[in-house]
Amino acid sequence: MEPGQDWKIAALTFLAYVHFFNGVDRMNSKYMELAIKEAQLALEENEVPIGAVIVKDNKIIAKAHNMKEKKQDATKHAEIIAIQKASKKIKNWRLIDCDIYVTLFPCPMCASALQQARIRNLYYTLENTDSKCMKISKQIFEKNNTNQTVNYEQLICEDKSLALLQKFFQKKR
Amino acid sequence: MEPGQDWKIAALTFLAYVHFFNGVDRMNSKYMELAIKEAQLALEENEVPIGAVIVKDNKIIAKAHNMKEKKQDATKHAEIIAIQKASKKIKNWRLIDCDIYVTLFPCPMCASALQQARIRNLYYTLENTDSKCMKISKQIFEKNNTNQTVNYEQLICEDKSLALLQKFFQKKR
Repeated sequence: MEPGQDWKIAALTFLAYVHFFNGVDRMNSKYMELAIKEAQLALEENEVPIGAVIVKDNKIIAKAHNMKEKKQDATKHAEIIAIQKASKKIKNWRLIDCDIYVTLFPCPMCASALQQARIRNLYYTLENTDSKCMKISKQIFEKNNTNQTVNYEQLICEDKSLALLQKFFQKKR
Repeated sequence: MEPGQDWKIAALTFLAYVHFFNGVDRMNSKYMELAIKEAQLALEENEVPIGAVIVKDNKIIAKAHNMKEKKQDATKHAEIIAIQKASKKIKNWRLIDCDIYVTLFPCPMCASALQQARIRNLYYTLENTDSKCMKISKQIFEKNNTNQTVNYEQLICEDKSLALLQKFFQKKR
């Protein structure tokens, strides 16, 4: 290597990282936009507008939205339906290396389902306004006896889904 | 009323109460025995042996057992399947005046599902050996913003289902 090349290598490595993480961000945004589209479908069906997308190896393996009223079943949250579809797709209850994109931070039922299904990362846009619900779900995601934990991260594209939710609640009141 | 009749009325009232609560206890035991039978079915299918029965107005509206391995779906716990069946039966996600009999104290996923489905009473036989799991599920059952709570009570008929569970875990190890 010629003398004085070190900074060039460092600069190229840096650019490669920036490129990679930009790519990751773009993909993350793309998946979250699909989750928001699912939430929009729920809204059109007069459901609480929540959508979810499950991704494995950069492929979408499940999309779902809340269908509690339509199916008259309290368990039919977007995340639960998405888990069921994803498991069916890969023929395995262990959703190894799978990430979920959800428009709202999950309730304890869904949080525990994600943890038991071994989801790797949870990306969400909106925080749940029910603080007890948020607290319990976060407790579920913490390290436990089974050593199975779910990493969670908020993606900043709040406006769209927030507007959706607001529109829904305004309509209901 | 003749003088001195008060004690007779008190005694009769007492006997009526005893009779009534004996009846309730007998019914409770009957439903729990059915839940244990469901757990036995799970065991025969090489599942973690957990069974559940949902009762409304003294009628069984759903029976289920754990089918996680068979269905390759982490959400297919006995309680979730029972809620889904009961909702389908009464065509309503609100399981008002419904009680559930489960062989094991529910995990947070099922606890939250029971709470959201508005189950009135939860009867269980075995405590969950995972103390974090027990703690979180109990938190879920506490009074919350929605004012929706689930009463829970342990029914003492531990031996049968404990033997079932033990047999299962011995086989697995």
